[in-house]
Amino acid sequence: MTLDQINALLARHEADIITDWKALLRFPSVSTTPGHAPDSLACAGWLRDYLNASGLTARFLETPGMPVVYAERQGDPTLPVVLIYGHYDVQPADPLSAWLSPPFEPEWRDGRLYARGAEDNKGQHFYVIAALRYLIASGARLPTLKIFIEGEEESGSHGVTHSLPQWKALLAADLLVVTDLHMSSPTSPTLTMGLRGLIHAELDVRGPCKDLHSGTHGGLVPNPALALARILTTLHDGNGRIAVPGFYDDVPAPTPTERAMLAQIRFDADAYAASTGLPATGGERGVPPLERAGFFPCIDVNGMQAGFTGSGMKTIIPASASAKITARLTAGQDPQRCLKALTTHLLAHPEPGLQLTITAQGVGGRGFRVPPDSGRLRQAAGVISQVTGHKPEYRWEGASIPVIADLIAATGAEPIMAGFGLEADNIHAPNESFSLEQFRMGFRYAALLLTTL
Amino acid sequence: MTLDQINALLARHEADIITDWKALLRFPSVSTTPGHAPDSLACAGWLRDYLNASGLTARFLETPGMPVVYAERQGDPTLPVVLIYGHYDVQPADPLSAWLSPPFEPEWRDGRLYARGAEDNKGQHFYVIAALRYLIASGARLPTLKIFIEGEEESGSHGVTHSLPQWKALLAADLLVVTDLHMSSPTSPTLTMGLRGLIHAELDVRGPCKDLHSGTHGGLVPNPALALARILTTLHDGNGRIAVPGFYDDVPAPTPTERAMLAQIRFDADAYAASTGLPATGGERGVPPLERAGFFPCIDVNGMQAGFTGSGMKTIIPASASAKITARLTAGQDPQRCLKALTTHLLAHPEPGLQLTITAQGVGGRGFRVPPDSGRLRQAAGVISQVTGHKPEYRWEGASIPVIADLIAATGAEPIMAGFGLEADNIHAPNESFSLEQFRMGFRYAALLLTTL
Repeated sequence: MTLDQINALLARHEADIITDWKALLRFPSVSTTPGHAPDSLACAGWLRDYLNASGLTARFLETPGMPVVYAERQGDPTLPVVLIYGHYDVQPADPLSAWLSPPFEPEWRDGRLYARGAEDNKGQHFYVIAALRYLIASGARLPTLKIFIEGEEESGSHGVTHSLPQWKALLAADLLVVTDLHMSSPTSPTLTMGLRGLIHAELDVRGPCKDLHSGTHGGLVPNPALALARILTTLHDGNGRIAVPGFYDDVPAPTPTERAMLAQIRFDADAYAASTGLPATGGERGVPPLERAGFFPCIDVNGMQAGFTGSGMKTIIPASASAKITARLTAGQDPQRCLKALTTHLLAHPEPGLQLTITAQGVGGRGFRVPPDSGRLRQAAGVISQVTGHKPEYRWEGASIPVIADLIAATGAEPIMAGFGLEADNIHAPNESFSLEQFRMGFRYAALLLTTL
Repeated sequence: MTLDQINALLARHEADIITDWKALLRFPSVSTTPGHAPDSLACAGWLRDYLNASGLTARFLETPGMPVVYAERQGDPTLPVVLIYGHYDVQPADPLSAWLSPPFEPEWRDGRLYARGAEDNKGQHFYVIAALRYLIASGARLPTLKIFIEGEEESGSHGVTHSLPQWKALLAADLLVVTDLHMSSPTSPTLTMGLRGLIHAELDVRGPCKDLHSGTHGGLVPNPALALARILTTLHDGNGRIAVPGFYDDVPAPTPTERAMLAQIRFDADAYAASTGLPATGGERGVPPLERAGFFPCIDVNGMQAGFTGSGMKTIIPASASAKITARLTAGQDPQRCLKALTTHLLAHPEPGLQLTITAQGVGGRGFRVPPDSGRLRQAAGVISQVTGHKPEYRWEGASIPVIADLIAATGAEPIMAGFGLEADNIHAPNESFSLEQFRMGFRYAALLLTTL
């Protein structure tokens, strides 16, 4: 289809599409709150019915958690099979008092639809399935489609991750379309070129059987908080480089193509410092910021606790100290191997008399990079240029979406990752919204991409 | 007076003494609970009246907090002037449900009087002032006496410390008798030979303006928790020795006499490990435990906090990290100078982009050691031997009693520090008690010491 035809299709059905989008937004499908499970199920049922009514065959895929809404449609067998990802669960709406209109009663203000999930992710998957409904109705030539909308993204995707291996054959696809993403600005649409993997571990340093008087025992017993500090300090060398043996073994350097693309992206140091409150001086010395975030692993402490943390002083030697640690992994790094290297390193720094224990550990998915010179990526870039009037920026993200990496690993699909979210959408915050302009951009992108593959 | 005469005096008046002791214990003079201020004042009034009725001239010394009960009596001008320290405030009685009898209704069980304060410190100062009452009544030859019983020891002695400088002349004395102390066992009476000083500082490491997403920003911004760990690690070298420049400048080594006395004391490593849950392997390598606690400074982290410390994980780079730090100082170390050295060292480890701030700091008194070869100490040791039938152990304590050091500094008095507390007394815990045997020991010690100087 041409963009003009798609615009005509959208114009003809926009009123219905918006009515349905608002219906989807009325479900308080908050996955982090067990009390909302019936609302989530109702939301999943609505989506299944919508997809069935759109010419696809939809059903639930059961998981130990919330079901996945799954739909299929046989298309042109000469075209690549397309798997489309989304999630129907939303973040909690708290604090409710900060909302200008109720979070589950969608309201238009100044061209933006306000509701929890308006963008993340109901808005950003609904423009895809709405486009499909009317493309199918109009008899457009489409590839074989597989729709996968999970209900636990905001609460860790544990059920989905657990059940994914059994759906390997079912989900097999050539392309994975992910729109749960944002762009730098309305004039800088973005193609996400990679995500990092994630591992986490919690270290506990146990000392005396109880908090001890720091006068009577100071200098006699080892201090668990100081021991923890010493252990954490061994994670990096003086240049900010990870010092865990073997951690860098499988970190591939950017390819010449990636390096050339990276050189095209401007890192706005001032804007970064303005939004975070500090300059991008972390990580490994001598590596440019965007390369650090996109192509290097990192290890961070997310939380740390020992002894007395109230106001004032309490003269104790704490009985224990603990730290929560996460590492982000690049494509190529095996999460299980890295987790083993990390925990082995942490436990390799014993202090006489103290007990070191890893009290929790886990993998939150592997990192991956999108092949930068694939024809399909160029096609997607062309679609974005046509729809937005601007060439997309290529961005290697430092963040992780565990299920995406698992989906790629399970299906072998090539990811095409572009979405139309903006910082102004306030996702995860009160007064979330998605503008009609952004929604239309997404509709056009999805329709043009799926009809020109 | 001879010990026989003192025993006769005690036998004659013991019934009255116990009645008065129980009256003193009935005041819930909890200084950490503002609601108990009237009870504390009533307790102070009772003590003032008791001292006035005993032949001393007693009054309140006002402070910004609770008043000090102060009493004087002119004695033989050829004898050393004696200042006696005690405190009338007690720890809270919580948890009340754990008490077998109400904490402020003293009850005898198996030769022990159960009540909050029975030992700490009402029992241990009341045997001194009861002894004085009957010594005065019996016409004994006594030195000039100054009694100083404060009401804030359990809540930090802030008012007393603040007001102390103005009482310098008033409190001038040759000897300071402190009985707020314990012995190793009933057959191992103890002369405390020193206390350590105390300084404290709180370090805050501030990073991003808010907790940041650890994926998007991991490797871009410096992590305040890791930075704090690195800074804390610089406090000691690889041998556990304090690495703060200048910190050891004024640390005097034990004198040959002290070293010889130290060699007489056995450190029971098994008992220590059994009571604390770990061996005494902290502090500086190669220094015996008792020397480490008594003659060396130490720096400890009392508490540490950063980011997310709930259960589960939260993938953030914390906005800030903080640590509460205390150091114990030996005799000779100037607390203000050490505090300056410590805070200067902490702030001398900046991390690009992060702000280090000392958010709180203070001095909790200086350390001191008792001259080990003074004639008066030998006299006190002789009194203890006579009263208990056992030679006293000499112990250099790692702990601090801020007001004692201040009293010594303000008055120039030589401290004689021995008390008759035992671990079994459960001070600061439910079911505190003091045995009649311990009380009698204290009465005999005080009476014999004050009449044989």
